[in-house]
Amino acid sequence: MDRDDLDAVLDATSVGTLATVVDGQPWAVPMLYARVGDRILLHGSTGAGALRHVAAGAPVSLCVTLLDAIVVADNLFDSSANYRSAVVRGRLEPVVGEEAERSLTVLSDVLIPGRSAEVRAATRKELAATLTIALPIESGQWTVKVRSAPPSEGDRNPDVWAGLVPMRTVAGEPVRASWVSGDVPVPASVKALVGEAGR
Amino acid sequence: MDRDDLDAVLDATSVGTLATVVDGQPWAVPMLYARVGDRILLHGSTGAGALRHVAAGAPVSLCVTLLDAIVVADNLFDSSANYRSAVVRGRLEPVVGEEAERSLTVLSDVLIPGRSAEVRAATRKELAATLTIALPIESGQWTVKVRSAPPSEGDRNPDVWAGLVPMRTVAGEPVRASWVSGDVPVPASVKALVGEAGR
Repeated sequence: MDRDDLDAVLDATSVGTLATVVDGQPWAVPMLYARVGDRILLHGSTGAGALRHVAAGAPVSLCVTLLDAIVVADNLFDSSANYRSAVVRGRLEPVVGEEAERSLTVLSDVLIPGRSAEVRAATRKELAATLTIALPIESGQWTVKVRSAPPSEGDRNPDVWAGLVPMRTVAGEPVRASWVSGDVPVPASVKALVGEAGR
Repeated sequence: MDRDDLDAVLDATSVGTLATVVDGQPWAVPMLYARVGDRILLHGSTGAGALRHVAAGAPVSLCVTLLDAIVVADNLFDSSANYRSAVVRGRLEPVVGEEAERSLTVLSDVLIPGRSAEVRAATRKELAATLTIALPIESGQWTVKVRSAPPSEGDRNPDVWAGLVPMRTVAGEPVRASWVSGDVPVPASVKALVGEAGR
């Protein structure tokens, strides 16, 4: 697996599990993230104590998993799943100042491409309440695993059904917030997001 | 959040991230799992060194996350996601002997309900190659978080679109393995799996 494979897995979703060690114990939390070049940006509230902990240079593993199919074998032992997963190991780096402001925009544009051009910039107060952290992607510090295959042959019995049930994530119809006028059209960024889901 | 909420999140998917500490460093891996009463069963190959490591009583955190919607606010700062997540902390317990055999069947029937009745039992050799481990669900050792709400009000501007883009996982048409006769019907377990996806 090469770096392009890693990027493909990381870019196929926006939710990962960030694992670290707190007082010698494993600690895990789901996080929204966006890969930007050789960094994975994560952000959260400055009020979240757990996030402050990992922001302070603690070693972390970020694990991303996509379930692609349930693998139905002709026996219980070989039943499995097709999936893509990535684990990136490293130490988180705080992102501060002007770079934090740029990162909020970049992260938003990865989650909802084009949205930053449709809304106002973040205020000083909003930026102060945002903790942006970055996990560098370094050589030898990541793993990608992909299973993309039919069931293991098992008994290879032509009379017992075996195969795959493909799974994918799809977007539903956008739902307008109650305070938005009915005549405000769904913006291009949201339309694109609906079209992109399930890629 | 009470125990029913935890079970609902755990039962809504079959893929989690298992985090532990190896040589003082965080370590994370995706795992298929099934909750059965007060235990979460995980299984893998006895050949997987990493799994052997955690099976030996190491403390773990299992994190499960479901992305329910992208939250599109009228500003970048309030954009977010609706999600359900659960973290269960504890020490893994090996499952051995007859219980391991039962567990393989039970785990299979959670992943693919009804499948165990359609195929032969696992062989002695298959059972020997399977490592089954259990994470007990203990009081005070789990956390459930749910965000299920419209965007934060932000500017509450009636002229800027804000709202939700719902996301869900759906199953596609089952794909038969190449060696299975074309006249073997899709079994009831697989039909049910397709119908259940997206719950």
